Amino acid sequence: MTAQASAAPPHTASIDRLARSVADRMAEVNALILRHAGSDVAMIPEVADHLISSGGKRIRPMLTLASAEMFGYGGGDGDVKLATAVEYMHTATLLHDDVVDESAMRRGKPAARMIWGNQASVLVGDFLLGQAFKLMVDVGSLEALGLFASAAATISEGEVRQLAGAKNLSVGETHYMAVIDAKTAALFAAATATGPIISGEPTHRGPMESFGRNLGLAFQLIDDVLDFTGDPEALGKNVGDDLREGKATLPVLLAYARGTEADRTFWRRCIERGEVSDADVIGAAQRVESTGALAEARERARRYGDLAIADLRRVPRSEMRDILEDVVAFTISRLH
Amino acid sequence: MTAQASAAPPHTASIDRLARSVADRMAEVNALILRHAGSDVAMIPEVADHLISSGGKRIRPMLTLASAEMFGYGGGDGDVKLATAVEYMHTATLLHDDVVDESAMRRGKPAARMIWGNQASVLVGDFLLGQAFKLMVDVGSLEALGLFASAAATISEGEVRQLAGAKNLSVGETHYMAVIDAKTAALFAAATATGPIISGEPTHRGPMESFGRNLGLAFQLIDDVLDFTGDPEALGKNVGDDLREGKATLPVLLAYARGTEADRTFWRRCIERGEVSDADVIGAAQRVESTGALAEARERARRYGDLAIADLRRVPRSEMRDILEDVVAFTISRLH
Repeated sequence: MTAQASAAPPHTASIDRLARSVADRMAEVNALILRHAGSDVAMIPEVADHLISSGGKRIRPMLTLASAEMFGYGGGDGDVKLATAVEYMHTATLLHDDVVDESAMRRGKPAARMIWGNQASVLVGDFLLGQAFKLMVDVGSLEALGLFASAAATISEGEVRQLAGAKNLSVGETHYMAVIDAKTAALFAAATATGPIISGEPTHRGPMESFGRNLGLAFQLIDDVLDFTGDPEALGKNVGDDLREGKATLPVLLAYARGTEADRTFWRRCIERGEVSDADVIGAAQRVESTGALAEARERARRYGDLAIADLRRVPRSEMRDILEDVVAFTISRLH
Repeated sequence: MTAQASAAPPHTASIDRLARSVADRMAEVNALILRHAGSDVAMIPEVADHLISSGGKRIRPMLTLASAEMFGYGGGDGDVKLATAVEYMHTATLLHDDVVDESAMRRGKPAARMIWGNQASVLVGDFLLGQAFKLMVDVGSLEALGLFASAAATISEGEVRQLAGAKNLSVGETHYMAVIDAKTAALFAAATATGPIISGEPTHRGPMESFGRNLGLAFQLIDDVLDFTGDPEALGKNVGDDLREGKATLPVLLAYARGTEADRTFWRRCIERGEVSDADVIGAAQRVESTGALAEARERARRYGDLAIADLRRVPRSEMRDILEDVVAFTISRLH
């Protein structure tokens, strides 16, 4: 159940390089995040701050700022506002997700719904989504608004798709890829496409959108692998949480397809009937390992990482481009 | 518990006049409502259509179209798209509201959450909100986008305010008015302000926004009165539903403030402890009547109706303006 012993990860620190390179703008984002989550209805900042201050890595707003910087954005605070909007959209999704998944924990703390109830989580999520769109309107780019409105619809469509296929092993890989493309990759793609859009560099939108999408797919595939092999500390949740929620992630679908009849019975009990003991979490990890399912999921994550690098190389080289290549490498290094 | 016997309502049919006057555009709105609620994820149109086809009066999109027509909008299908967006925002609110209120019924049918679960109601609401913003982006008016983004944040802020004050008789009238101003009046105001904005008549935005707000306040005050006196058929829900959900609406707050100590004990049991029998629904109706609380709530609704008429008279007279005056009269006539 511990991280696989292997060569020292080559890029453990490279997210720090991104963080350093956007630190000044990120300080403004962090201030704006707190300011616009304010309301004279006390429950709103309480719920919002609980999640906002819970130590998420804020990778999405950092990518938004990096993308703007990369294309020479100099038009004021549009990058900061859109980065804030991206984090709000992500936070709103997490609040609603925890209600949908009936999760007890989020980032190693009790989920907001466990403290303030499902009702507050739904409504504060709605409020943050409204604030996100207000910030986008402030920036005044219809193209950016279109990008994020589409992402909002796509994310929830992906969540419904996931819900409709929950506890079902027959959904197949196409379903799984469609779900993660919508629920994770779409917001990454919107974040990384922001730069060319607000900097007046429309020809670079395509590669940067594709970069974000491929990075998001790699990111989610790795998250799903780590549900079997991760370090709970770094994960911010317990190993086996996805399994306990009946989520048929790629490792599960592959292990089910490749398993013996006994394996398939095991998976049906865990995923379709939702009977998962602590011993089953260990048994599941052994099965995804022994069938080669984890190895294939890892390999697929690496492939999306390679595609993300190839996307980046379609835009002009810059220091920030190098930093984003390192982000891909860092993302992949979480597998080690 | 039946509607108060009084003179025949003078304007029973006047919503039909509005409906007739925007019928052609409304047919396009209805088609668009169904089209954009489509998805290859089957659960989305199922949930959305359940509510969309459940016979709501679609007063908000009709007001949007009327407002556009009133100021000579001729720029294409922006009015139809924004009217559709308004109805989506309203539908999303209802889906989330039913989850928050744990309601079993909506418009005389089982609430979507009773059939597809809370999870689907939350996510399909999110999807419709995303589609609403996509439609607004299509129209391309940043001013309209700003109006609706603010309304979205305000509506959810009002819902959280209501939740934070639920089952609490000490919240007072100011709290109640702030709640209905946000959760009902804000979307009416956005709908009626659309016309001047997309027709290039910015000087008329103020009066039209104020008209919608005052109409919305009258509308909600009346809805809250009808929870005690209404006809379940026309109401689309049961008399006493708000009471059973522990909602301290204006009639309750006034009756509590004016009641005897025995009355106050009664209200505390119903609202704060949530113990409401069928006999209590009758007892509550008698108390709001005998203390004059209902009469004052009605009077206040009439006053907002008068303000709405005064707002209308600040814009140039037209056939549509007359029709909207009739809508105010119709709204008030629901009290009889």
